[in-house]
Amino acid sequence: MIIDCHGHYTTEPPAFMAFRKAQIAHFEDAATPAPELAAISDAEIRESIEMNQLKALRERGADMTIFSPRASGMGHHIGDEAMSKAWTRISNDMIHRVVQLFPENFIGVCQLPQSPGAPIENSVEELERCVLELGFVGCNLNPDVSGGMWTGAPLTDRFWYPFFEKLVELEVPAMIHVSGSCNPNFHATGAHYINADTTAFMQFLQGDLFRDFPDLKLIIPHGGGAVPFHWGRYRGLAQMLGRPHPNEHVMRNVFFDTCVYHQAGIDLLFRVIEVENILFASEMFGAVKAIDPETGHQFDDTKRFIDALPLSAANRAKVFEGNARRVYPRLERALRVRGL
Amino acid sequence: MIIDCHGHYTTEPPAFMAFRKAQIAHFEDAATPAPELAAISDAEIRESIEMNQLKALRERGADMTIFSPRASGMGHHIGDEAMSKAWTRISNDMIHRVVQLFPENFIGVCQLPQSPGAPIENSVEELERCVLELGFVGCNLNPDVSGGMWTGAPLTDRFWYPFFEKLVELEVPAMIHVSGSCNPNFHATGAHYINADTTAFMQFLQGDLFRDFPDLKLIIPHGGGAVPFHWGRYRGLAQMLGRPHPNEHVMRNVFFDTCVYHQAGIDLLFRVIEVENILFASEMFGAVKAIDPETGHQFDDTKRFIDALPLSAANRAKVFEGNARRVYPRLERALRVRGL
Repeated sequence: MIIDCHGHYTTEPPAFMAFRKAQIAHFEDAATPAPELAAISDAEIRESIEMNQLKALRERGADMTIFSPRASGMGHHIGDEAMSKAWTRISNDMIHRVVQLFPENFIGVCQLPQSPGAPIENSVEELERCVLELGFVGCNLNPDVSGGMWTGAPLTDRFWYPFFEKLVELEVPAMIHVSGSCNPNFHATGAHYINADTTAFMQFLQGDLFRDFPDLKLIIPHGGGAVPFHWGRYRGLAQMLGRPHPNEHVMRNVFFDTCVYHQAGIDLLFRVIEVENILFASEMFGAVKAIDPETGHQFDDTKRFIDALPLSAANRAKVFEGNARRVYPRLERALRVRGL
Repeated sequence: MIIDCHGHYTTEPPAFMAFRKAQIAHFEDAATPAPELAAISDAEIRESIEMNQLKALRERGADMTIFSPRASGMGHHIGDEAMSKAWTRISNDMIHRVVQLFPENFIGVCQLPQSPGAPIENSVEELERCVLELGFVGCNLNPDVSGGMWTGAPLTDRFWYPFFEKLVELEVPAMIHVSGSCNPNFHATGAHYINADTTAFMQFLQGDLFRDFPDLKLIIPHGGGAVPFHWGRYRGLAQMLGRPHPNEHVMRNVFFDTCVYHQAGIDLLFRVIEVENILFASEMFGAVKAIDPETGHQFDDTKRFIDALPLSAANRAKVFEGNARRVYPRLERALRVRGL
């Protein structure tokens, strides 16, 4: 089977987006009405998925998407912790409804109620709810809740340790994924996302996080940001910092996805990164929802690029399925229960 | 001839570094002695270059380096504007001395007395001094004087316009180059540098800077950060933002260097970026001064990677020489005067 490890619910029903709008307005001006989520029917959710993500999934020949709320919509830098909690719960519940309607094609990954100044311990409760009650298999962890101001601590700081302990205990990985940017220097999907990927990798290279958490598994999306293009630089920096080769020091615990929207980029990714560390993904629908005039296909139809690689059947199966089942043990168990 | 467009004086004599140390100490505690630059002999400078950059230049078969002060040493976020001015002037004078001692092998590019809160107009005087009096052919422009806090305005903001006007008037390009990082999230050469490259490109893609400055020429170092690896993403984002193809909208004015430290990265760079937009460079000596155990050669010996490309003689000449002469018109004139 073919598993896409990085999909977002970016086709949410209007009532859902209206709630968020009202929530922000109410936070900014308490005189505006408190937000209320209008009823959203199963039919509405079904249509929003069937006409979009599921349609593309089928057309492209994939089977299942590891599905999470819109990343730029998490907006941890907006409002306060209570607001982030309410919004996060509603967002995750929406993912759960999608998964219940399409259990064969979607499985959940949650956003977290992170908020500037809030200890990461406060995100554990929602993680446990999603994993233990809703059957989610992972989470998206925002390394910069300030939304592009980068005022928090690096991922190797002990600030994050209570959360990493819980991830290991629950056997769920985290995708390191920022949200929107309130810094005018950083376009969200064109700069902030990619910078965060590069930044996270370099933090891992500098630090010793995986000595303390040998079983922790983290996914860096968007092909690992700039890392594969500068793989020589990172190998060299590891040497200069007295660190082992990145394959030893980082890549036993870190995985890159294939959200790289052209053949040349995918070719490079597979040339320098071990196939065990690459998970198929499309970001569908994420940064670019458009047809590439050079190919006539959607930019985010990344399966085509992988199909074009001269991979052995065994390696192809790792990228499309095996690695995901290994990195997300709860996905593996859910599939096995179904005889898959 | 072979011109390396990106080299730094990272082998400065000890007295020079001692000045900076004293300058910072004096700023932090006025009770410490005011900094004074001890005499540095020509012999000392000569040795620091002959044993290092010039040795590598000769061994690698290149002819000339466009040479600027240590990038991480610019430290615009440290101290105040007066301190930045004093340090910048001394740093540029050191480059001038190197160029005077080795006029055939080095030509100068200046750092600027940028400082948080200071208008960019205040950098014009030092630029003019370096270009008009010292014969420098370009400058390094720091897009984030806050040193990783990114509190300033994007490069497309009118804040920068007076400086861009001066660059066009003087016919000198700027390399967009950050300095050190005081943000613990960003390792300087492993994250901050690369993020800044990616960020600058995306700012240009979003904005309309080159409509206002059709003759402005900017170099994004380190192979353009993450951009070539995500070239499909940027082509797609341009489309979604209603912008022309990046080749039209950005790359008539923007050039990438070849500071990418492995063959796979260089191969990708040349596969997606037009050869007219690529300038040979090594960053020598920059982020990684070490031997790659996979090749047995220095990581930053980037000429080897270009030599290994199947380029036509004409294209090779563009990358090694022609593009640099076009992007740095004052270099072109200086070479022509010498019959080169």
